Amino acid sequence: MLAQARELQARAVVFDGLSTCNWSRGIFEEMQAGGVTAVNAASVLWEDLRGGLDNILAWRRMIEENADLLRPVKTVADIAAAKAEGRTGISIGWQNTSPIEDRLQDIGLFKDLGVGIMQLTYNTQNYAGAGYLERHDSGLTGFGREVVAEMNRAGVLCDLSHVGERTAFDTIAHSAQPVCISHVLPRALHDVARNKSDALLAACADRGGIIGISLFAPGLARGNDATVEDYLDAMAHVIALVGEDHVGLGCDFSLDHPRPGPYQIYASRDKGTARELTEFAHATISKPLGIRRIHEMPHITAAMLRRGWGEATILKLLGQNWLRLLRQVWGG
Amino acid sequence: MLAQARELQARAVVFDGLSTCNWSRGIFEEMQAGGVTAVNAASVLWEDLRGGLDNILAWRRMIEENADLLRPVKTVADIAAAKAEGRTGISIGWQNTSPIEDRLQDIGLFKDLGVGIMQLTYNTQNYAGAGYLERHDSGLTGFGREVVAEMNRAGVLCDLSHVGERTAFDTIAHSAQPVCISHVLPRALHDVARNKSDALLAACADRGGIIGISLFAPGLARGNDATVEDYLDAMAHVIALVGEDHVGLGCDFSLDHPRPGPYQIYASRDKGTARELTEFAHATISKPLGIRRIHEMPHITAAMLRRGWGEATILKLLGQNWLRLLRQVWGG
Repeated sequence: MLAQARELQARAVVFDGLSTCNWSRGIFEEMQAGGVTAVNAASVLWEDLRGGLDNILAWRRMIEENADLLRPVKTVADIAAAKAEGRTGISIGWQNTSPIEDRLQDIGLFKDLGVGIMQLTYNTQNYAGAGYLERHDSGLTGFGREVVAEMNRAGVLCDLSHVGERTAFDTIAHSAQPVCISHVLPRALHDVARNKSDALLAACADRGGIIGISLFAPGLARGNDATVEDYLDAMAHVIALVGEDHVGLGCDFSLDHPRPGPYQIYASRDKGTARELTEFAHATISKPLGIRRIHEMPHITAAMLRRGWGEATILKLLGQNWLRLLRQVWGG
Repeated sequence: MLAQARELQARAVVFDGLSTCNWSRGIFEEMQAGGVTAVNAASVLWEDLRGGLDNILAWRRMIEENADLLRPVKTVADIAAAKAEGRTGISIGWQNTSPIEDRLQDIGLFKDLGVGIMQLTYNTQNYAGAGYLERHDSGLTGFGREVVAEMNRAGVLCDLSHVGERTAFDTIAHSAQPVCISHVLPRALHDVARNKSDALLAACADRGGIIGISLFAPGLARGNDATVEDYLDAMAHVIALVGEDHVGLGCDFSLDHPRPGPYQIYASRDKGTARELTEFAHATISKPLGIRRIHEMPHITAAMLRRGWGEATILKLLGQNWLRLLRQVWGG
């Protein structure tokens, strides 16, 4: 079944809706071994303007130094080119709009520099809205409405994964373009704060958006005991809810960051340096057995085949759905 | 009566809870003519870290160039020294915590540089809470609780004038120190969004805070037709509500900014550059007749005397109440 999965992936565009590894040539080699065509590489969590620019500079350097393995992605045509060239496409993403600080127009500048997907806010309140760990969520702010409108205008896909539920509903209603929930698991199968309600997942899909199913084990009912089958169960739940045209991968790989280490501490504190918001800096968090690292991606495809899912369905889930959404929002 | 007022002011400490003029030697001369002992000079509205530092640098230069008229104020003793020297004390203030950006610890740095009073947020949502013009107010955020605690620790007075009502109530409840509403008018006398409810004014005073009564004519029932008597009516209303120990001046002079001009546009737009929040950039806004400029400050004192208010009461209202609060929050 694995050989068949590899053969299918060789023909498929495989798009990972979000990962946030400690990027290195080792990871890039893994992505190639795993058959990843392109990834929304979204390591920005709390960065300001300078940090957002530095992240882009770091990607320019890494792509240049690993040009045999990587290429930049600014358009859907770039993803097709990555597939044709056998390289992995890097679409730079943000998990927070913090790098625009208080300047709406910077969204267009960063789009030109390659930031194609921006999460509205990460975990807590920012100028645009509330994260899922904020004390109270008053929805999309006035400035947030302008941020979403500017994303629509500039052709940036809006991501709602770590966003608070009320802000997320507001954004879906306010956005002129479909949005995504790039890496998420359904609360219906495991009731934890980070997961999203069926109602929100359905609202996202109803407006043409995509739900990327995450490999984050704490969001699965069996936690660190989960296997690739639990992952497929979560995906099957969302497909049953919203249909196979609105589901994709959102692996949430965060490989090779030392645990515990500075990145985990930065991620778990509000703004990176204030109070601790989650226990994730100290917890053992793994991915489901069978898909713990990126080179195991064909195990997902193999599990789909084992369930008897048709090839057309699998191709949509691996990447075609993401491509349709990116084509619509990015244009071209 | 004006001579008597001038004589009384000569003995009084006159503290202006907030003004935001286009500062110049002309204004400094007016402050001296008006008998202003010290002012919370709070021109920062949307500035970031760099802007906050630049504002301090601008004050260092102005104080140095006008050392015959001005002195810096970091302590209550500095205010007493300003009185003794016949100079006007400049306490640097902010109308927004935007210059700390996402760094709690910067509050202590800015306190050391002379920023003694910080308004939590200006008009809209920031990391700490909502302004009075935000679409919805979810109260003090998690980060906002940390901001208030750090202000308490560092000895910075928290100001709630442009803050949303729910965030303001939350802050009063959460703060270990009393807070102020530095420049405000009562909604009970004129029901406009910028004014505050009797319940909020009472809550502020109940915890030991001060309400500075503003000369902002749109907040008075007669608007630009108001006179110094309308101003005294507003002050009398708040005194009847909270007692004469919790009321002070909060003149809100914004003199010599060209109208319409860049400062007004900056003030009226969210973050200074996004959508327009108020019509104030285009409206004719004056101060009440008789107290349109700072040199007319003795007209307020004269009006108090005309109403038969006692000298002890007037001295509290002109500055002693502010001094008590500053001594408590600043220490020393």
